[in-house]
Amino acid sequence: MKLIHSIIKPDATVISGRMGREVERAKIAVMEALKNKQVVVISSGDAGVYGMAGVVLEVAAVENAEVPIGIIPGVTAATVAASKLGAPLVNDFAVISLSDLLTPWGQIEKRLEAAAEADFVIVLYNPQSPGRTEPLTKAHQILLRYRNPETPVGIARLAGRDGEKIAITTLKGMVDAEIDMVTTVIVGNSKTRVVNNRMVTPRGYDLAQA
Amino acid sequence: MKLIHSIIKPDATVISGRMGREVERAKIAVMEALKNKQVVVISSGDAGVYGMAGVVLEVAAVENAEVPIGIIPGVTAATVAASKLGAPLVNDFAVISLSDLLTPWGQIEKRLEAAAEADFVIVLYNPQSPGRTEPLTKAHQILLRYRNPETPVGIARLAGRDGEKIAITTLKGMVDAEIDMVTTVIVGNSKTRVVNNRMVTPRGYDLAQA
Repeated sequence: MKLIHSIIKPDATVISGRMGREVERAKIAVMEALKNKQVVVISSGDAGVYGMAGVVLEVAAVENAEVPIGIIPGVTAATVAASKLGAPLVNDFAVISLSDLLTPWGQIEKRLEAAAEADFVIVLYNPQSPGRTEPLTKAHQILLRYRNPETPVGIARLAGRDGEKIAITTLKGMVDAEIDMVTTVIVGNSKTRVVNNRMVTPRGYDLAQA
Repeated sequence: MKLIHSIIKPDATVISGRMGREVERAKIAVMEALKNKQVVVISSGDAGVYGMAGVVLEVAAVENAEVPIGIIPGVTAATVAASKLGAPLVNDFAVISLSDLLTPWGQIEKRLEAAAEADFVIVLYNPQSPGRTEPLTKAHQILLRYRNPETPVGIARLAGRDGEKIAITTLKGMVDAEIDMVTTVIVGNSKTRVVNNRMVTPRGYDLAQA
């Protein structure tokens, strides 16, 4: 928030939204745009990854609002976290949000099972909040059914921001990690290993050439 | 390449690599760094997503090279393509490369099946080249087994670059699209729809609030 204030024009109107009021926020933005104002809706990370981009497009359609909408891609938590941990995402990966506020748990569970079984590297968004710890516990149990307990797991809290904390643990050990809503968890695939304290998923190159 | 040249210092040494010589390129970079030079390895997109980040870390380890390596995250093709198409990635997604040069086809096929069955939005990297068209044909057949032929499919060629071409088609219709190595293909999940010519995957918000 502080960062945003430092780059916006002093005469801009700032409307702050709240978690859980995304539809209302999108509607305010669309209504302001209909008054021929230039409106910017800010999401942290990439607005297109679990962000506001979709709901703004949907609300504009519901309101029959013919306003031009541009979407600016950003650097999403998965890739920031990956860069801080090493190179865990240089092979196929699946991105799954553990928040069951908007997605039924059965669907999340099915995706966890599928991604674990097909040996995707798995990136967990919204892993845990003070009032919602069960999804991560269940996800951990599912992952342990398919992956070695020693599989490297990266824990990136506030990756790329003030207060950043980066740790590499194992699937077995991740129960002891500090994980909250500003943490991204990256679970390695069967080939991911730790090289010089960095988490690396091999791409398949023959290193004997080196 | 032109863009890179416009931002590097005039006295920098530029070593151009070739596709298929990634290990050699990583080794050159590590060897130069061992001479106390400041070396930058450039990947298009995000170096951590099917890019050079992993092989540089691996080669440095093989060579026992104690050089500090920092990785700068970028905006990967999936999120640039998504922003141009609308908001297809605001729900869980899987990223799969169709290149079978480094990954056995059986593994790719297994991931396609799993991601399709668990209703992930699917982002295909390296979908097709003049000499490699079979993977995309097979992937298309697998996807048709699990998804409605009318599922929206986004085709983003050179997204965010000169010569950009963005199109939205269907799973049935994608056989007619121009798809090559600089194209990213995004296959919607069962809920993805086209809203005002934009591809949107609902996040699950109740739009009646709008």
